Amino acid sequence: MPSTRLGKIRSLQVRAPASSANLGPGFDIFGLGLEEPFDVVTVTLLKDQRIVLKLDPETKYKVPEIWNENSAGLVADALLRNFGGGFGCEIRVRKGIPPGYGLGSSAADAAAVAFALDHLLDLHLPMNTLIAFAAKGEVASAGVPHFDNVAAALLGYFSAIRQGTDGLDLVSLTQIPQDLTLCLGRPLVQVPPKKTGTARNILPKQVPLSDAIWNIASASLIMAGFAIGNIKLIGQGMQDKIVEPARSNMVPGYDRVRRAALDAGAVGVAISGAGPTMLALIDRGKSDPRKVSKAIREGFRKAGIPCEITITKPGKGVCVIDDVV
Amino acid sequence: MPSTRLGKIRSLQVRAPASSANLGPGFDIFGLGLEEPFDVVTVTLLKDQRIVLKLDPETKYKVPEIWNENSAGLVADALLRNFGGGFGCEIRVRKGIPPGYGLGSSAADAAAVAFALDHLLDLHLPMNTLIAFAAKGEVASAGVPHFDNVAAALLGYFSAIRQGTDGLDLVSLTQIPQDLTLCLGRPLVQVPPKKTGTARNILPKQVPLSDAIWNIASASLIMAGFAIGNIKLIGQGMQDKIVEPARSNMVPGYDRVRRAALDAGAVGVAISGAGPTMLALIDRGKSDPRKVSKAIREGFRKAGIPCEITITKPGKGVCVIDDVV
Repeated sequence: MPSTRLGKIRSLQVRAPASSANLGPGFDIFGLGLEEPFDVVTVTLLKDQRIVLKLDPETKYKVPEIWNENSAGLVADALLRNFGGGFGCEIRVRKGIPPGYGLGSSAADAAAVAFALDHLLDLHLPMNTLIAFAAKGEVASAGVPHFDNVAAALLGYFSAIRQGTDGLDLVSLTQIPQDLTLCLGRPLVQVPPKKTGTARNILPKQVPLSDAIWNIASASLIMAGFAIGNIKLIGQGMQDKIVEPARSNMVPGYDRVRRAALDAGAVGVAISGAGPTMLALIDRGKSDPRKVSKAIREGFRKAGIPCEITITKPGKGVCVIDDVV
Repeated sequence: MPSTRLGKIRSLQVRAPASSANLGPGFDIFGLGLEEPFDVVTVTLLKDQRIVLKLDPETKYKVPEIWNENSAGLVADALLRNFGGGFGCEIRVRKGIPPGYGLGSSAADAAAVAFALDHLLDLHLPMNTLIAFAAKGEVASAGVPHFDNVAAALLGYFSAIRQGTDGLDLVSLTQIPQDLTLCLGRPLVQVPPKKTGTARNILPKQVPLSDAIWNIASASLIMAGFAIGNIKLIGQGMQDKIVEPARSNMVPGYDRVRRAALDAGAVGVAISGAGPTMLALIDRGKSDPRKVSKAIREGFRKAGIPCEITITKPGKGVCVIDDVV
């Protein structure tokens, strides 16, 4: 056996949640960990230094099984190089998160592997370190490391993160207003390859000061809303003058869907991550999520696009389902 | 007597606090109401429609006694036109807040008059309406209405505000971490006339997207810090890549003072409002405010400028000192 500070567990099965980044103005910063959908990822230590990636036969969606084209494989490689002590690992993925739709599919698996290897190798890494390693996986899908989805996948609920001047600056808020309900509208369109990279390149390099100030206020309102449990403030904050105007053309029916969801009682609507899924926030105490869902479906339908609706809420981060000694 | 829904009180003396806007990234949005310094403003209803503005003999600082060149007079005019029912008022101001140094001097008096007339005329206006009226006074000093200082003066403690799509969006947080201490360093320089207007005109019209994202994250960290009572987060957030870099030349010794205060243990340093006062935030449980004060004084001294230090903390908004039936 390779030498390492090893726990007794050799295999860990974890549940890794989808996440919705940005919430409009919080581009590259805010993330919501979702209760649904999620992936199930099983990581097993190998006695040699191979990294093996397999799709579970029951997987709902496919992703590359070549380890270094997959976020999970890249994270495993980075962690094992630093802390593996000669071990490799097999990663088995059962995807419940559709990849490429702005739901943090790659971040979920990256977070799952970081979490699982931390346990299996008995590393007890600080959360910021786990997030930094998990973010290395995002290079596979986005071209650059970014932290918003992996932080949300690891911590669940609401998080805000950035690369600060002295490490990562991180806020994790886990007390979510009970009535806060989410509706995801996923248009069933073919997603172009390298979509996330395209969605980044489409952004303006310079923005008007007044729009920056608007978004600063918007993001502050969202943060305040989550921190003090005020859904109305969150909705007031979900107004973005920078990223969504540039990206709205990438989502078929964007304006129609957004307007319809707000008219049906959503407090706020945003593109989920780089899209094309649309996210609506609903105060269940005041509006019916099914009504908002119907409006979103109808909005996409009028744009000629069928869509899949998921009603969910913010939920916990990566967690253990099963372990094998 | 003019007819109006009048209470029995004819004269009200209120305490109106200084405020510190922006905190770095929260330009035009964030404000802190301060315990010290403050103005004392006495508003007395007059039976005719005159507005009379007088400086109290004990005033520490002078401001224009011409009512329509003074924020307090402009606010009185706006309120009396809408709700005065034929009354006028006399406003007597005893200034403890030095005008022109970025400490919300004009906002304090504007807030005081809005608050006092609301009471004297028995109007019970909603807070957002009071803020909107008080902001009309800011035109006298800044050339445009802005809300950050008047909201902080009316509500005290920490506030965030903007003109939203449907009225004012407002967050008021009054539970401040007990150890949060503020140090104001006011350089004793001659302040140019129309300073606030100049400080606005100096700002870039376009900013890099990356700087906007940085400031969005910074402001979110500040909001989170106040909302969950985490002084360290507030400090992490007090890093501004947009407004302060453009304005730092307006504050003599800016870099030196900022660096010295941080080295002495301040968690964050910012220009207070449009300056030239510098604001340092200190976690009293971890650092000595006197040490930070000394560092700020020394920083200004090395730039050849004497300064006045005030150690204070966030405090309550405008409040009644005395009333006369």
